[in-house]
Amino acid sequence: MTDFTPTERTQVHRLPKRGVYDREAVYRILDEGLVCHVGFVADGKPLVIPTGYGRKGDMLYVHGSPGSRMLRALGKGADVCITVTLVDGLVLARSAFHHSMNYRSVVIFGKATMLEDPAAKREALRVFTEHVAPGRWQEVRQPSEKELQATTVLAIPLEEVSAKVRTGPPIDDEKDYALPVWAGVLPLKLTPQPPLPDDRLPKEIAVPEYVRGYTRKRR
Amino acid sequence: MTDFTPTERTQVHRLPKRGVYDREAVYRILDEGLVCHVGFVADGKPLVIPTGYGRKGDMLYVHGSPGSRMLRALGKGADVCITVTLVDGLVLARSAFHHSMNYRSVVIFGKATMLEDPAAKREALRVFTEHVAPGRWQEVRQPSEKELQATTVLAIPLEEVSAKVRTGPPIDDEKDYALPVWAGVLPLKLTPQPPLPDDRLPKEIAVPEYVRGYTRKRR
Repeated sequence: MTDFTPTERTQVHRLPKRGVYDREAVYRILDEGLVCHVGFVADGKPLVIPTGYGRKGDMLYVHGSPGSRMLRALGKGADVCITVTLVDGLVLARSAFHHSMNYRSVVIFGKATMLEDPAAKREALRVFTEHVAPGRWQEVRQPSEKELQATTVLAIPLEEVSAKVRTGPPIDDEKDYALPVWAGVLPLKLTPQPPLPDDRLPKEIAVPEYVRGYTRKRR
Repeated sequence: MTDFTPTERTQVHRLPKRGVYDREAVYRILDEGLVCHVGFVADGKPLVIPTGYGRKGDMLYVHGSPGSRMLRALGKGADVCITVTLVDGLVLARSAFHHSMNYRSVVIFGKATMLEDPAAKREALRVFTEHVAPGRWQEVRQPSEKELQATTVLAIPLEEVSAKVRTGPPIDDEKDYALPVWAGVLPLKLTPQPPLPDDRLPKEIAVPEYVRGYTRKRR
């Protein structure tokens, strides 16, 4: 796969060493994340809304109710900035100044297209469901025509995209290494807890493997 | 504490039952989060940047390098929308259509003020450090005059604010409850992993209690 070409907007200026344009690395971050933050301009002012998403190839999908202010604005072709951030750990330095976080983030610029074709919408809904829980789509009741109509799906091409990544230990000022202060990284991980079966679930329906062994790591 | 008053922008229109304006509930979400997504408009287009933050009373603080495009834009009084999202779990329904997530999110609208007074900046940096790891500030080397000058701190008043919260099991269509599909919630939690001491840390420096017993839950 070819890398993303940095544009004026996606070129990482602050701490350029953290900039990542490798397409597979970007897609791994997108595939691990659950929620994106969608930024758009409404009446000249910024709005940032969290929502789920899915990716297939070079396309990101978001969806929701046709009544959603965000989806209506984006469906009309408004510029959008979508950001996905994974927090990997706290970077505890010997000085307050050098405290940081380990993270991986992706920023996407573009315009959305509203899907109209029912088959394309159905496929995007499959992508969402499989993004959240791979294996789920085959088991659940799939969308009816009415449900498809009641769902707005937007596609955003992955063209103007960059990632930013920080990893590793704190970097302290040389003289601060002598301070008697604990320093290092506290890794953080979004971890599944024991599943909570629905109250109305018959006892004989077992927890599926993709729920019991749930992980956000892919491949 | 008095509730936030909904404005046209913070009134939750979609699924109004999920809207929360209770100030303490909003502050609990902000105090648990680590990263916010800062949205602003640059050259007429939206930009969404993830960054750390801290809260003290009715004020949210973000900080960074004076060279940061975001901090320069906001320091000039641009409108800002700051969103904090906590993902609490996957809501696995019997139909694809009713899949959802349990989450808590806060959206803040306003304008930022740049802190100039060194004492106010120092206090904001204390708030950041304690937000990430309560107890840390007292142990680390505190900012020098030069470091304070090399840090831009912005304050955003918590005035136009709302939260949105989803909790609980999936809500399926009545007829779907008969389907032989596992349904329920898979809770997710940002969980600390074993701390990684810095390679240059002397062996005799123990892991502090606030790192060993790390949790994002407050009070």
